[in-house]
Amino acid sequence: MVKETSPVNLAFILILLCASNVFVCRGEWEPTWSSRAAEEAEAVAAIPCSGHGRAYLDGLILKGHEPVCECNPCYGGSDCSKLLSDCAANAGSGDPYFMEPFWMRHAAGSAILVSGWHRMGYSYSDGSYISQLLVEYIKKLHGIVGNAITEGKYIVFGSGSTQLLNAAVYALSPNSSMSPAKVVATAPYYPVYRTQTQFFNSRDFSYEGETSSWKNKTDKNSIFIEFVTSPNNPDGKLTKEVLEGPNVKSIYDRAYYWPHFTAIPSPADDDLMIFTISKLTGHAGSRFGWAIVKDEAVYEKMLTYMDMNTMGVSREAQLRALKLLDVALEGDGKEIFQFAYSTMRDRWIRLKEIISKTKRFSLQKISSQYCTFFKRDRDASPAYAWLKCERQQDNNCYEILEAAGINGREGSLYSADNRYVRLSLIRSQDDFEILINKLKILVSKE
Amino acid sequence: MVKETSPVNLAFILILLCASNVFVCRGEWEPTWSSRAAEEAEAVAAIPCSGHGRAYLDGLILKGHEPVCECNPCYGGSDCSKLLSDCAANAGSGDPYFMEPFWMRHAAGSAILVSGWHRMGYSYSDGSYISQLLVEYIKKLHGIVGNAITEGKYIVFGSGSTQLLNAAVYALSPNSSMSPAKVVATAPYYPVYRTQTQFFNSRDFSYEGETSSWKNKTDKNSIFIEFVTSPNNPDGKLTKEVLEGPNVKSIYDRAYYWPHFTAIPSPADDDLMIFTISKLTGHAGSRFGWAIVKDEAVYEKMLTYMDMNTMGVSREAQLRALKLLDVALEGDGKEIFQFAYSTMRDRWIRLKEIISKTKRFSLQKISSQYCTFFKRDRDASPAYAWLKCERQQDNNCYEILEAAGINGREGSLYSADNRYVRLSLIRSQDDFEILINKLKILVSKE
Repeated sequence: MVKETSPVNLAFILILLCASNVFVCRGEWEPTWSSRAAEEAEAVAAIPCSGHGRAYLDGLILKGHEPVCECNPCYGGSDCSKLLSDCAANAGSGDPYFMEPFWMRHAAGSAILVSGWHRMGYSYSDGSYISQLLVEYIKKLHGIVGNAITEGKYIVFGSGSTQLLNAAVYALSPNSSMSPAKVVATAPYYPVYRTQTQFFNSRDFSYEGETSSWKNKTDKNSIFIEFVTSPNNPDGKLTKEVLEGPNVKSIYDRAYYWPHFTAIPSPADDDLMIFTISKLTGHAGSRFGWAIVKDEAVYEKMLTYMDMNTMGVSREAQLRALKLLDVALEGDGKEIFQFAYSTMRDRWIRLKEIISKTKRFSLQKISSQYCTFFKRDRDASPAYAWLKCERQQDNNCYEILEAAGINGREGSLYSADNRYVRLSLIRSQDDFEILINKLKILVSKE
Repeated sequence: MVKETSPVNLAFILILLCASNVFVCRGEWEPTWSSRAAEEAEAVAAIPCSGHGRAYLDGLILKGHEPVCECNPCYGGSDCSKLLSDCAANAGSGDPYFMEPFWMRHAAGSAILVSGWHRMGYSYSDGSYISQLLVEYIKKLHGIVGNAITEGKYIVFGSGSTQLLNAAVYALSPNSSMSPAKVVATAPYYPVYRTQTQFFNSRDFSYEGETSSWKNKTDKNSIFIEFVTSPNNPDGKLTKEVLEGPNVKSIYDRAYYWPHFTAIPSPADDDLMIFTISKLTGHAGSRFGWAIVKDEAVYEKMLTYMDMNTMGVSREAQLRALKLLDVALEGDGKEIFQFAYSTMRDRWIRLKEIISKTKRFSLQKISSQYCTFFKRDRDASPAYAWLKCERQQDNNCYEILEAAGINGREGSLYSADNRYVRLSLIRSQDDFEILINKLKILVSKE
């Protein structure tokens, strides 16, 4: 039968078939060595987990291992379709899964294929451990958002903001011949400032408690290092340093200073600011953060810390960050922020609505404020609810919530009163819905 | 003309075309969202750099940026085809590019495609920061090689062995209420042990110099932490701890204890051993290492250090390590070691041949030894040459070599005499050939 078709006919058929997209034609690009990796990744992504879980590549590639759904909290079964009864809402850790739908939507643009020989050496071509291309992307993004001034400043990378917090403390502390720097923070504050400073137990610095207890008590004999988190974790407030004087240095933790979580009144221009991809794109697992540093000597000390501690940040994490920021910068660079803000705002509105029905609990007040990024007043959309138990007898708010099937984090972790609990609002939609349901029941029981 | 072909004919043609592999047919797997990433990676890999350089994905993806070859030392031009004159041999850093050809050969198996939503959260499904699948792979590899006993032991990950060295010092040091642990090492030794311990300047430990000066001087009042590198960096010798007593703890840096670099006389069974992927697969840039720990309390302390310092190791780095070890474990798991050993052995033979022609220089002696992995006596194949200038007047060997266009690392960096220089033998074949050429000229000038 084939003989009936002349070579000319055959060529014509091929052209038609190519054009009709029934076949991929040679001449267009076709994968060779990359196809196995691509196929593996797509096979894993196609595993159905009922929208309540996810299968990952590193649960699959061991020969003989079957793909496995990792279910969201309170879901079970091999395909995560089973809603578990008597399951407490997970509102504890700040795993930023709220951004996951954005990345599913940008599947093609955000994927990276890493060859076996990608960046085997220690250094980039300039001899550093820092991708200058990624530095450019970061500066560009800050420029679009208008949340930080990067011109004339230095950028250093860390394995998450975690590593940079301590690098900054080391860099700002005096030599060991002087008395140790006094590290302080204002409650309620992110506990890592204290635990990390105490853990490393350096002769160069020590944790000295509440900032307020040192107000008007700074002197020339000690360097003070004040942690400032703005917006604050846990309560979302925009804050400023409290201490004043020539011996006071501030470390501004700017993890949450993105349109996702706060109005951006003006670009931050602090001497030392720390950001993390975790709360920007939602990739906590990548362990990638950056510090923007004004003073060259401080920058050099932070680089030395990074060399001594880990010889820089994983080149795979830097590559991934580059690709994620590439997507964030697409078009006018606003889509990711519109997605993140609208998600967080909706969650806050729903939460506020429930809490407004009771006098037993209250939430932090965050007023609507003009945002230079959105060019309008915008509603609150904090990363965490800082919930207070208002009844006198409810002096352990964590236990009250726990009894109602809600796991938050107790106020004392943040050096605050246990009348407060932090509830994470940046987790998956599943976790948020379960939280909302449990709160509704709790409030309706009154 | 198409009308001449009946539907039956068309179907038959399709089957033939599919079978003839001219087209990829639907029904076989075809990439969807992964194809852009795959195409980008293959396009970068296809950039011709004349075999003297490499283009990387993170030099390309910025829009408007052209792909760029990053040339090996002493090569230049847009495609790295130009051998630069008056260019010194780079025998300095331990960038393990000697493994690159292995990964080019295993392109399909070693590639990973990372989706935009891969492991966004902090934890694996067991709540830890450590991929248990990767732990399994590591144990399996040690089992095949027979270089370390992992049964009944704990494994903790770090951002390269760098981070684990300091984590181990913290974990082995007493609480701050006791006197600080004394950290010691035996020259010639890897300088990071000293610089890191001094840099972090903890109240819990201090660097106390040469191990030998504390022999028979350990007492009950202090904990001693002895760094043991076996095989040793720089000289490749198999070593053991020197100090004895109940207060002495050893950190065994086992980075080079692979068939690449040494005979494996028996599986190492030390209390605390540190390995790194850098010197196993050659991926220094990934910043991935692991410690094998006997004592549970020490393991827990190291985990705490990792949490406090960086909240674990980048999940991308862990995924990459998993894939690389997957390739290493293929078949009988011997190919990677045969490749690495044969490369390093050939290099050592060529180097020895040149140095044997002169009395001005000498190399460390490493005798042939029975290897339980290869099940035979095997030749030396160290990672570094520990070259000595034998002439009395040549008391700065680094300068002698530098004048001859060879950049090594001076002995004093390793707390040894400057009659010694470390020459890295694990860099690219280009670097090694230039080194050999410069040495030939130097030796022939006598």
